[in-house]
Amino acid sequence: MTHADAQALDRADPLAPLRDRFSIPDGTIYLDGNSLGALPRSVAARTAKVVSEEWGRDLITSWNRHDWIDLPRRVGARIAPLIGAEPGSVVVADSTSLNIFKLLAVAAGRSDRRVIQTETGNFPTDIYIAGGLATLTGHEVRVDDLAVIRDDVAVVLVTEVNYRTGARHDMKALTARAHAAGATVIWDLCHSAGAFPVDLAGAGADYAIGCGYKYLNGGPGAPAFAYVAPRHLPGLRTPLSGWLGHAAPFAFAPDYQPAEGIDALRVGTPPVISMSALDAALEAFDGVDLAAVRAKADALFDVFAGEVGARCPEFELLTPRDAGSRGTQVSLRHPEAYAIMQALIARGVIGDFRQPDIMRFGLTPLYLRFEDVFRAAEILAEVMATRAWDRDAFKRKAKVV
Amino acid sequence: MTHADAQALDRADPLAPLRDRFSIPDGTIYLDGNSLGALPRSVAARTAKVVSEEWGRDLITSWNRHDWIDLPRRVGARIAPLIGAEPGSVVVADSTSLNIFKLLAVAAGRSDRRVIQTETGNFPTDIYIAGGLATLTGHEVRVDDLAVIRDDVAVVLVTEVNYRTGARHDMKALTARAHAAGATVIWDLCHSAGAFPVDLAGAGADYAIGCGYKYLNGGPGAPAFAYVAPRHLPGLRTPLSGWLGHAAPFAFAPDYQPAEGIDALRVGTPPVISMSALDAALEAFDGVDLAAVRAKADALFDVFAGEVGARCPEFELLTPRDAGSRGTQVSLRHPEAYAIMQALIARGVIGDFRQPDIMRFGLTPLYLRFEDVFRAAEILAEVMATRAWDRDAFKRKAKVV
Repeated sequence: MTHADAQALDRADPLAPLRDRFSIPDGTIYLDGNSLGALPRSVAARTAKVVSEEWGRDLITSWNRHDWIDLPRRVGARIAPLIGAEPGSVVVADSTSLNIFKLLAVAAGRSDRRVIQTETGNFPTDIYIAGGLATLTGHEVRVDDLAVIRDDVAVVLVTEVNYRTGARHDMKALTARAHAAGATVIWDLCHSAGAFPVDLAGAGADYAIGCGYKYLNGGPGAPAFAYVAPRHLPGLRTPLSGWLGHAAPFAFAPDYQPAEGIDALRVGTPPVISMSALDAALEAFDGVDLAAVRAKADALFDVFAGEVGARCPEFELLTPRDAGSRGTQVSLRHPEAYAIMQALIARGVIGDFRQPDIMRFGLTPLYLRFEDVFRAAEILAEVMATRAWDRDAFKRKAKVV
Repeated sequence: MTHADAQALDRADPLAPLRDRFSIPDGTIYLDGNSLGALPRSVAARTAKVVSEEWGRDLITSWNRHDWIDLPRRVGARIAPLIGAEPGSVVVADSTSLNIFKLLAVAAGRSDRRVIQTETGNFPTDIYIAGGLATLTGHEVRVDDLAVIRDDVAVVLVTEVNYRTGARHDMKALTARAHAAGATVIWDLCHSAGAFPVDLAGAGADYAIGCGYKYLNGGPGAPAFAYVAPRHLPGLRTPLSGWLGHAAPFAFAPDYQPAEGIDALRVGTPPVISMSALDAALEAFDGVDLAAVRAKADALFDVFAGEVGARCPEFELLTPRDAGSRGTQVSLRHPEAYAIMQALIARGVIGDFRQPDIMRFGLTPLYLRFEDVFRAAEILAEVMATRAWDRDAFKRKAKVV
C-alpha cells in the first residue's frame, strides 16, 4: 500500500467531512481517542456560554431557566440511541466507578445469591469497586473466566471490549447465558459507546455503565452514564442515596424516597460545566450512522494492522483479527513497548502504553483519516528500523500515559 | 439608616475592591451566594484554556503536562487554609453527598459501635446518605437532637451551619463532647467554607466535607472537598474503591491498594473542566483575610436584618442574632415566603426559598456592598407595603429556587 492509496481511501470516505467537527492539532496523529477523545468544535462555545451567561449572568435561576436540573437526563437521552437503549433508561452522573458501585449494589441487592462475578483481566476499577462493595455487604467477588457462570452468581460485571487487548464479548450470548444461570449482567461499555453500534435492548441487557470521555469525546473526566433496562426500573434504589436522586429533592423531606425511573441513580449536584461540555460534544454524532463508523473503523484497522504487520513483524497483534470479536483499537505487544510509544509520541503519533508491554492505538473514525493511520504505521516502522527509541525512557516514566 | 449611610460604609470597607474579582450582572442584588456563588472573573479564561489548549491541543498528554492527575489534591491544598486544615489533609472529589458516604463508611467502619447519629433538621442529603449506607451495613441511623451523644454512637454527622436557619454549632465544643462519648465527628461545612474562618485543626476535628459551589464560588455543581485529620489518615480506605484512589492507578494491578493519605478518597476520573473552574475561582480568596470577611458579613447582617426588622415587623428572624451562634445568612419566616421571594426576584433581588415558609438571604462579603443589602431591605419593604407579591405564584412553582 502507498500513501496515495491511503489518500484515495480518504477521498472515497463518506465520513471524511466529520473530521471538521473536531479540533485536531496540526502535526498530530491522534490514536488515543479510546483514552481521551479529541475536542469537538462545538464544546468551546458551549462551555463559554455556560460559564459567562448561564452561571455568570443568570446565576441560580439557571436551574430553571437553562434547565440544569434535567441536564443528567437530557444528556442521557442523547447517549441512548448510541447504545441501543430505550427512552428514559439512561442518565449521566458521577464517574464510571461510582455508577458501577450503584448498579452492583442494585443488582446484587435484588438477588438472594452472594456472588458477584467478574472477569480476570477486567479493567481494574471494575474489580476494585466490586471488592469495595463487598467490604460492606459480605458478597464474594469471583474474578474468573466467564466461560462458566455458576448458579450461585447474583450478578456478572463484564466489560464488553477489553481495555488491553481490544477483544470483544458477544453481549447477547453472554447475557443469555447469565440469565439462564439465574444472574443479571452489568455491561461496562467504556470501550464500546460511540465506537460502534451497541444494542442493549436487542441483547436483553439488564444494566450498563460507560465513560463520557473516550469515544463520546466529552472531555477530561466527563461524567459517566448508567443504563437500567425498563423492566428493572420499578423500585430502583441505590445506597448512594443523595438528594438529587430523591423523588422531590426540593421538598427537603426527612425520609429518602427514590425518584421514579432512571433519575434514582442521581446522587449529588452534577458538575454542570463538565456535563454541558459532554452535551455539546455529543452533537458530533448528530446524523451519524454508527454502522458506518464501525465499517470505517474496520477499514482503518485493516490498513494500520496490515501495514504494521507487513513492516514490523516483531510485534504481536493482541487484538483479534476477526472484526466481530473486537472493538476498534489495535493492541501491539513488544518488550520495549513503553520506550517505543515514547518515541512515537515524540514524532507526533499519540497512542498509549499499558503495563507491562502493550501499545494501544485507538481508531476513531469521526476524526481519523486513512492517511493518518498509514502514516502512523510508516513512522512506527521508521522507529523500529532505526531503533530510534530511547532505552532509558522507561526510567523517566511519567505518571500517566 | 439612609442610602447615603450605606454608601459611606462601602467607602470605608477595606474589602470593597474584592467585588472587582467577580462578574455580577447589572441590576441584580445577588443574595444567593450560599446556594450558588457568583462567577469570579478568573474562571472564564481558565475554562477556555482548559478546553482549547489543555484538552484540544495537548490532549492525553495533559495528564502529565498540565498535571491533571494531581488537580484534586492541588485544589484541596487551596481550600485547606480556608478551613484550618493541615497540609495534605484535603482533597477535592465527587459531590458532597458522595464524600459523606465515603467518610461515614470510614468513620463507622473504624468503630465497633452500630449507631450513626445525625441531627433533626440536618440537610436532607446527609440524612439520606447515612440511611443509604445503613442499608448495606445494618447501622442504625439516629436522627435526633445532638444535646445527648450516647455511648453507642460510632460517628456523629453534623452540619456546622444549618441550611434553613443559619444557626451555627460550636465545632470545638461538640467535637470534644463527641470524643468524650467515644465517637468521632464528620463536619459538613457546606455553609461554612469560604464564609468565615473555620479551624478544623484547632477544633480537634476528625473528618469534614463541604461544597465547592456555595461560598467557594466554584460554579454549578463544582466538585466537593473532603478532609481527614492527619491522625486518621493512616489506613484510610473507602468502599468506593475506584482506580484513582489506588496507590498506583497506572500499574493496573488486580488488587485494590489504597493510596497513602488523603488521595485514598479519590474514586474515578475527576471532571477536569469543572474542577479547573473551582481552582480558578479560589483565586478570589488570594490574600483575603477570612476574619475580615466574617466581620463584614456581620456588618452586612446588621444592616440587612436591622432594616428588615425596622421596616417589616411581620417577618420572624430565624437566624440567631448573636454572631457567634450563626453563619452568614439571614433567614426570614413568613407564610407567603415563596410568593414574596418571587416578587423580590422579579425586582432583581435574588435570594431563595426553603420549604415551607423560609426566605434565605446569603451574605457574601467578597462581592456584596452595604448599598446592596440596604437596597434589598428597601425593596422587600416596598413589596410588603404594596402587597406586591402574586398570591398565585405558588401554583406556578418552578422545580428549583
